[in-house]
Amino acid sequence: MQPSVDFWYELASTYSFLAAERIEALAEERGVAVRWRPFLLGVIFKAQGYDTTPFNIIEAKGRYMWRDMERWCDRLGVPLARPEPFPQNSLLAARTALALPDDARPEFSKAIFRAEFCEGRSISDPAVIADAVRQTGFELETAVAAAQTDLVKHALRKETDEAQRLGVFGAPTIVTPDGELFWGNDRLEEALDWARGRK
Amino acid sequence: MQPSVDFWYELASTYSFLAAERIEALAEERGVAVRWRPFLLGVIFKAQGYDTTPFNIIEAKGRYMWRDMERWCDRLGVPLARPEPFPQNSLLAARTALALPDDARPEFSKAIFRAEFCEGRSISDPAVIADAVRQTGFELETAVAAAQTDLVKHALRKETDEAQRLGVFGAPTIVTPDGELFWGNDRLEEALDWARGRK
Repeated sequence: MQPSVDFWYELASTYSFLAAERIEALAEERGVAVRWRPFLLGVIFKAQGYDTTPFNIIEAKGRYMWRDMERWCDRLGVPLARPEPFPQNSLLAARTALALPDDARPEFSKAIFRAEFCEGRSISDPAVIADAVRQTGFELETAVAAAQTDLVKHALRKETDEAQRLGVFGAPTIVTPDGELFWGNDRLEEALDWARGRK
Repeated sequence: MQPSVDFWYELASTYSFLAAERIEALAEERGVAVRWRPFLLGVIFKAQGYDTTPFNIIEAKGRYMWRDMERWCDRLGVPLARPEPFPQNSLLAARTALALPDDARPEFSKAIFRAEFCEGRSISDPAVIADAVRQTGFELETAVAAAQTDLVKHALRKETDEAQRLGVFGAPTIVTPDGELFWGNDRLEEALDWARGRK
């Protein structure tokens, strides 16, 4: 059986963006399948007693993160922009990601991340979401309608609950089938190696 | 001129322990000199409004960190023990580390880390500190006396202030001569590569 991992990401998260840019090539090299699982990290922060990201709470940590993003984006050859506000409200984008078929979700999510962090666009704007859906080739009206159903709203809540139950406290987090967590864009390689049994 | 980095570490920090185990070989491979700079991370946490580590404040983060430490220690082939309490009070150990000559500091620090995280011993215990000094070959009474001088106490405060001024908010942090910060044991390779000009 092909080894696989779950890629838990938050569409408002800078390091989830980097991981989304990197994970497909790394997984393909290693023959590992990746399941893209968007969730709402803000809900988990709230349960911990925080109403925003640590990058906004601790100034030095935020300053470091943005500089680190500059270095990573330089290396990946993509521009970096800071959306206002940061973090963005990712609710509608996350619902739309879940509403799409599995094989359109990576493309859509990467388009959202690039709009947000390469162009500084607002990902709560339905026009930005529509652009991202169009890039997947999936039918726009169907996706928009599906994202507003109770079924999808409920599914996103369930996914976020599941992330929390697994012990996810930040994004991105890779979870392997044996229940190991690897937190952070800088641990992708290690997580994928773990999944195929090389420790 | 030989490239160099500053290795800022906290003697009570789990990931500083891993970095201390790894940095010398990685730096030697790359021809980079490493300056070992102990500081008190607790002072920086306090200035941010926290009275302990995030690993104790956020349960899921703490659980993850200890499991991650198990995986790392397995790979490095060293045993892992949890000191009680965690984090340990590292004041006396940090003063002693600073009191020692530069070339004894790495050996002393690694001995402290191993007592703490491989054997679960208390690093505020003068007997544990004495053992670690002995492993460096440096004269014990001289080190103990020096650690209690105002000069050394003041020097440690100044080092911690300097870390904060540089933007350090966690440990370990590698700082390159051009002022770049790299936070975390998982970024050592990248920091050392940056220092020798390979981005």
